[in-house]
Amino acid sequence: VPVSSTAGLRDHAILVGYGRVGGAIGPVLLDQGLPFVVIERDHLMLASAQEAGVPTLVGDASLPELLTAAGIDRARLIAVATPDGFQARRIVEVARGLNPAIEIVVRTHRDAEIAALEALGVRRIVMGERELARAMTEHTLRGLGVPPERAHVAAGRDAPPAAEGR
Amino acid sequence: VPVSSTAGLRDHAILVGYGRVGGAIGPVLLDQGLPFVVIERDHLMLASAQEAGVPTLVGDASLPELLTAAGIDRARLIAVATPDGFQARRIVEVARGLNPAIEIVVRTHRDAEIAALEALGVRRIVMGERELARAMTEHTLRGLGVPPERAHVAAGRDAPPAAEGR
Repeated sequence: VPVSSTAGLRDHAILVGYGRVGGAIGPVLLDQGLPFVVIERDHLMLASAQEAGVPTLVGDASLPELLTAAGIDRARLIAVATPDGFQARRIVEVARGLNPAIEIVVRTHRDAEIAALEALGVRRIVMGERELARAMTEHTLRGLGVPPERAHVAAGRDAPPAAEGR
Repeated sequence: VPVSSTAGLRDHAILVGYGRVGGAIGPVLLDQGLPFVVIERDHLMLASAQEAGVPTLVGDASLPELLTAAGIDRARLIAVATPDGFQARRIVEVARGLNPAIEIVVRTHRDAEIAALEALGVRRIVMGERELARAMTEHTLRGLGVPPERAHVAAGRDAPPAAEGR
């Protein structure tokens, strides 16, 4: 586990998973000049992050050692982009235990999961289906001739994503 | 199949699937006063649409009879919100055959599916994972202290959803 490159980080983000979702978040953070480290189980997914000089850790992010190596005690936020909801919740629980003040972003597919995540103090829960529905709604409105700005607002895409601050 | 209530429709939308995604699109169309008809295989999913007076058809939307009963020859748009990508593509093919000019909105989970859909003249393709990634990116940026408007734009959520017009 190469910890050296995370030693200088603080107030950083920890991005768990660097597949289709996490791998789309990373480039935006880079673009915005925001420091982050990636934890991913499959080292083959990490090539683009490593080429960009992003610190990466290979392994299971529900292990306290991994999160500690990622500097979770000094991190500002953890974004859990793994598709497996059970694994995601375990990571959230462990992360919360190691840093009670950390801001947590997590994806879920199930309404039933939201209460459990909120009980863990997660304020930023993204429902995949809700975002998909909003995007399809915007397309449908535009395809029916509704002007773009009105379609964007009516589809709820102008609002904060998902369940922030509930 | 109760076709009577669709007989007066024209320039309407046909919404295929009224589950978690389709069921979120319908209320916005109602709110905007845009006429539509729903095709759904499970009649139990249709209660809310029927209570709102929306014409509904129960059955498999890849059957030409169903699409014809939904007035596809006079419709402006069809939005295919079924989660099964294979079924979605079949519906698109049949719909395109029945109305070459119809505007089509479809969801997909696979990049590989996009070219096939584009070859069918679909201009409004929504990728679930892309929308999820955008929403998680916006949350991550906001959680790191980026102002809301900048976070919204940097996350790509200000842009048209997904692959419009490519």
